[in-house]
Amino acid sequence: MKELSQLSKSELKELKDKYQKAYDDFKSLGLKLNMARGKPSPLQLDESNEMLNILDDYHTSDGLDVRNYGILDGIPEIKSIFSDLLKIDKDNIIIGGSSSLNLMYDAVMRLYVFGTSGCKPWKDLEKVKFLCPVPGYDRHFAITEDLGIEMIPVKLNEDGPDMDYVMELVKNDDSIKGMWCVPLHANPSGVCYSDEVTEKLVSMETAAKDFRIFWDNAYGIHHVFKKETRKNVFELASKYNNENRILYFFSTSKITFPGAGISLVASGKENIAEIKNRMKVQIIGHDKINQLRHVKYFKNADGILKHMDKLAEILKPKFEIVLKELDKELSGLGIAKWSNPTGGYFVSVDVLSGCAKEVVRLAKEGGVILTDAGATYPYKNDPLDSNIRIAPSFPPVEELEKAMELFCICVKLAAVNKLLG
Amino acid sequence: MKELSQLSKSELKELKDKYQKAYDDFKSLGLKLNMARGKPSPLQLDESNEMLNILDDYHTSDGLDVRNYGILDGIPEIKSIFSDLLKIDKDNIIIGGSSSLNLMYDAVMRLYVFGTSGCKPWKDLEKVKFLCPVPGYDRHFAITEDLGIEMIPVKLNEDGPDMDYVMELVKNDDSIKGMWCVPLHANPSGVCYSDEVTEKLVSMETAAKDFRIFWDNAYGIHHVFKKETRKNVFELASKYNNENRILYFFSTSKITFPGAGISLVASGKENIAEIKNRMKVQIIGHDKINQLRHVKYFKNADGILKHMDKLAEILKPKFEIVLKELDKELSGLGIAKWSNPTGGYFVSVDVLSGCAKEVVRLAKEGGVILTDAGATYPYKNDPLDSNIRIAPSFPPVEELEKAMELFCICVKLAAVNKLLG
Repeated sequence: MKELSQLSKSELKELKDKYQKAYDDFKSLGLKLNMARGKPSPLQLDESNEMLNILDDYHTSDGLDVRNYGILDGIPEIKSIFSDLLKIDKDNIIIGGSSSLNLMYDAVMRLYVFGTSGCKPWKDLEKVKFLCPVPGYDRHFAITEDLGIEMIPVKLNEDGPDMDYVMELVKNDDSIKGMWCVPLHANPSGVCYSDEVTEKLVSMETAAKDFRIFWDNAYGIHHVFKKETRKNVFELASKYNNENRILYFFSTSKITFPGAGISLVASGKENIAEIKNRMKVQIIGHDKINQLRHVKYFKNADGILKHMDKLAEILKPKFEIVLKELDKELSGLGIAKWSNPTGGYFVSVDVLSGCAKEVVRLAKEGGVILTDAGATYPYKNDPLDSNIRIAPSFPPVEELEKAMELFCICVKLAAVNKLLG
Repeated sequence: MKELSQLSKSELKELKDKYQKAYDDFKSLGLKLNMARGKPSPLQLDESNEMLNILDDYHTSDGLDVRNYGILDGIPEIKSIFSDLLKIDKDNIIIGGSSSLNLMYDAVMRLYVFGTSGCKPWKDLEKVKFLCPVPGYDRHFAITEDLGIEMIPVKLNEDGPDMDYVMELVKNDDSIKGMWCVPLHANPSGVCYSDEVTEKLVSMETAAKDFRIFWDNAYGIHHVFKKETRKNVFELASKYNNENRILYFFSTSKITFPGAGISLVASGKENIAEIKNRMKVQIIGHDKINQLRHVKYFKNADGILKHMDKLAEILKPKFEIVLKELDKELSGLGIAKWSNPTGGYFVSVDVLSGCAKEVVRLAKEGGVILTDAGATYPYKNDPLDSNIRIAPSFPPVEELEKAMELFCICVKLAAVNKLLG
């Protein structure tokens, strides 16, 4: 088929009628599907159900009663498992509650209120800026926006952020204090940073002494089609004595239970000491019973990896539906490009400029709620109004097929409408 | 027996030798007891063990899957139970994670960073002060100290804070922005605020429009000898349209499991809206599985109250040992006064001025770790060096008897040493 932009007005009009009819037919089905967020499906959650009632004892191996107060930074067993899994020294890990987002929020807040390593707290500076690879994760951007931190979008290439641009910026502007990164199976693009990019990130010259990379490894072991491996970020950073530049976040939200998993923050020795020192004012200790549940269920790092294999099997057909449908319906039309992720939770679709909001609106009226257009950009402002995040994990396979059919119709309908002017 | 201050030098010397010998005998026992923190005993925790494996289903009554993302402010069932228990409108309750301390920290932080109801954020003010009834809770004081908020000690009378002093201060000084309160079975004094005091607190004129009372009802249903009842703080506050002055905190840390319970913050409608608005940036939602565990275990507010009766039975003999031993060993000597709490977790002892640190040191060397002297005051500075917090909940009965014997010896030894000059 020809690209739509090559078609004559009358050909486009014909298509428009066809797409409009297909759309109206869909509407009459009265669908009610939600693909707005990257939620695991019940089938995925079922894989962890055993954990709900797994506790026959409530002591750590060294006899500590996890039901009582004590231990700020997590029981030794859970630290060991994550240490093995992520190849991070266990002394450089602090276990949090169920939310790594909350750990990130607290980390930004600490730097904002108290500062770090002798630098002024960010609250006392005229201007603080963050680099934001785009498309990216809306909840990251919300944290920095809430604190009035100026966000600078950075193009995310196939191998990670555009490093020429990043390096030029951070070298010359000491008000750039941080950067949001999702280094593996990025939300929403699925991009995996190359080792070269990561090495540049940990070694680059920064004007700000307290420049921090928020390394949200949310999908660090969430492979679907391919087990991506990358060099360890701390190992790379240690070559340059820059471990403290990295604030590393991870959680089991999409491994066991969202909202009832285990999160962690890891960093260099000095940061960890600094964080503990503030954290001890904030909380006596996070839920150790839940930590022990995770330990008893997984036993070791290998237990987690095997569990992830099972989840990948559940996710795979869903990604296949999305990618197949996009390919079948939109290939060659010149009206959309999309990511081919090897893992993570999303497929990122770029539709014709100025059409993303319209596609999301059409889909919503047709019965499928997508992530808001623009959400993947700072200030919810996608300058091209082009990017849409598809979250295929939650709906059952049959519903997902329907939803993707509708989505493709919406993309085509919005495109012909735009081309018709 | 005569008061020690009435004794002659030689009588005192005789006593000193006697106490020193008793102390040395104790030391040779090689005790290792810890009464530093208000930790529930394993027996208390056992009462909640059933909850660990209680989940046969993971849905709320309206069909929500608690294992997945969603619900910022808590599942309806747990809000209803707390609403019934505490007589607070459920719409004015936000359920937190396992730590009410963390909720308090976040609440202070929000006011510090963002401000409230159109007032300047506290970070932008030259001076911010908090009123701190003393003796009080060290972890409260640590939060305000960490943010550089100046703490003004206020005498805690038998019926609550010295309100003449409080009212005079808040009326004239608009830099006084907050006040820490533990209104029932206060930590460590056991004081229960009278309704008159509470009504003054919620109605008094304050120079600061954004004055906030941090109403930490940590021991709100933690009766031991007597079921204290008080008027509802929000009901009193509503008479003066001051519900938003109160930030009310509660948790099940000392009901079910410390560090794995459920916490809440409650306030007026406007505050709650404001908190949710910030909180949604911080976290997607707290652990709903654990909320459901608590719902299934307690079923309703009455279930919690019955549970508290059982815990009171476990605590009662421990308080009796402490009070009996104090009475037997120290009454009439004029060297110590102590609280007679009807509930809560502590007995507060005032020893001779200048002796608290010495008593704690002696006890430690004798094998019993007490809460640091001074900890019950802002900046850990007890001007009289007199107050000591006794936490009888954790040790088994036999150990507690030993610990109290030693404690009384230490009080007497420190006293005679002081009197001998």
